[in-house]
Amino acid sequence: MGKGIEAIENLARQLARLPGVGRKTAHRLAYFILDMSADEVALLAESMLTAKQKVRFCSVCGHYAVEDRCAICQDPQRSSAILCVVRDPRDVLAMERMNDFTGRYHVLHGVLSPMEGVGPDDIRIKELLARLEPEGVEELILATNPDVEGEATAAYIARLAKPKGVTVTRIAHGVPIGGNLEYIDELTLKRALAGRRAMDE
Amino acid sequence: MGKGIEAIENLARQLARLPGVGRKTAHRLAYFILDMSADEVALLAESMLTAKQKVRFCSVCGHYAVEDRCAICQDPQRSSAILCVVRDPRDVLAMERMNDFTGRYHVLHGVLSPMEGVGPDDIRIKELLARLEPEGVEELILATNPDVEGEATAAYIARLAKPKGVTVTRIAHGVPIGGNLEYIDELTLKRALAGRRAMDE
Repeated sequence: MGKGIEAIENLARQLARLPGVGRKTAHRLAYFILDMSADEVALLAESMLTAKQKVRFCSVCGHYAVEDRCAICQDPQRSSAILCVVRDPRDVLAMERMNDFTGRYHVLHGVLSPMEGVGPDDIRIKELLARLEPEGVEELILATNPDVEGEATAAYIARLAKPKGVTVTRIAHGVPIGGNLEYIDELTLKRALAGRRAMDE
Repeated sequence: MGKGIEAIENLARQLARLPGVGRKTAHRLAYFILDMSADEVALLAESMLTAKQKVRFCSVCGHYAVEDRCAICQDPQRSSAILCVVRDPRDVLAMERMNDFTGRYHVLHGVLSPMEGVGPDDIRIKELLARLEPEGVEELILATNPDVEGEATAAYIARLAKPKGVTVTRIAHGVPIGGNLEYIDELTLKRALAGRRAMDE
């Protein structure tokens, strides 16, 4: 010791793997954890192990699931006619928080990115196309992010899905609610303008 | 589900107990942990349990220890004549990083704070006074923080220790190295001025 206690240093090293946790923050968290009761530390550690152990990906849509199929895929109330395609499970959670979408999802687990070597076979596009006919999908909402990879992925999927007779749509991009035109980036503004609608619509 | 998966929500709740981790960050960390490999999650969880299990407080000085006495208290090279009094074990680690202090420590595990109901019996002052004579302490360096509680605690200890024939000193407060006078708070500047020394000293 003198230079620090191994068990603490090891904990700090592990914590520093978390996103946004630098060396200093890792030590601060480590000391905080040492100050917690043994029961609290056990709860924290167990919650990690349990989450990692219990949570898997739905075999149908790729969302987080605790069984083979996720709760959304198991829900008979959800319409198979509309399928919303997203990049990862967090996006499903964001959509669900909206509490307004009654269709189902398809999680790609990534987006096309030639720069990072992610091609069509590396994300769940094949699985998506295989769902269209059997599930009677009528509309495919492409809800990947409005960045270069997200757009390219949406365009790629659209090209493959359209010939299968489904309506392919893209979520609207524009000025966020509460956003200020002055501070909006040009691309968003351009999109907002291109996507303008008649006021009486 | 639909509204979120219990194991993930539980993990996020546990993570949100950590300092500086709000609801949003807790979820971000939870998703990150789900993306880690099972082995990595196990390492992280174990490092917490191990640290909490192995690390205790030195029965003599109150610093972090893996045995009954910490490595510093066990080190015969460290002088018993000078005892540095700090608020908590982190302060010992900070002092040790300096690599310059060869005396021993006494960790109070808190400072006097009437506002928060912390009195002399709630911190390790009794234990400190009991060490002075048997260990042959000649100088007591009071290194509590230069804030209201730290000052009050230092003054309180000084009053009790001086009659026992030890030299009681307080660490110097002043402009930090690399600090800019323009941005230094007034109290620090006042201290820096009051603590001025002759240049040829």
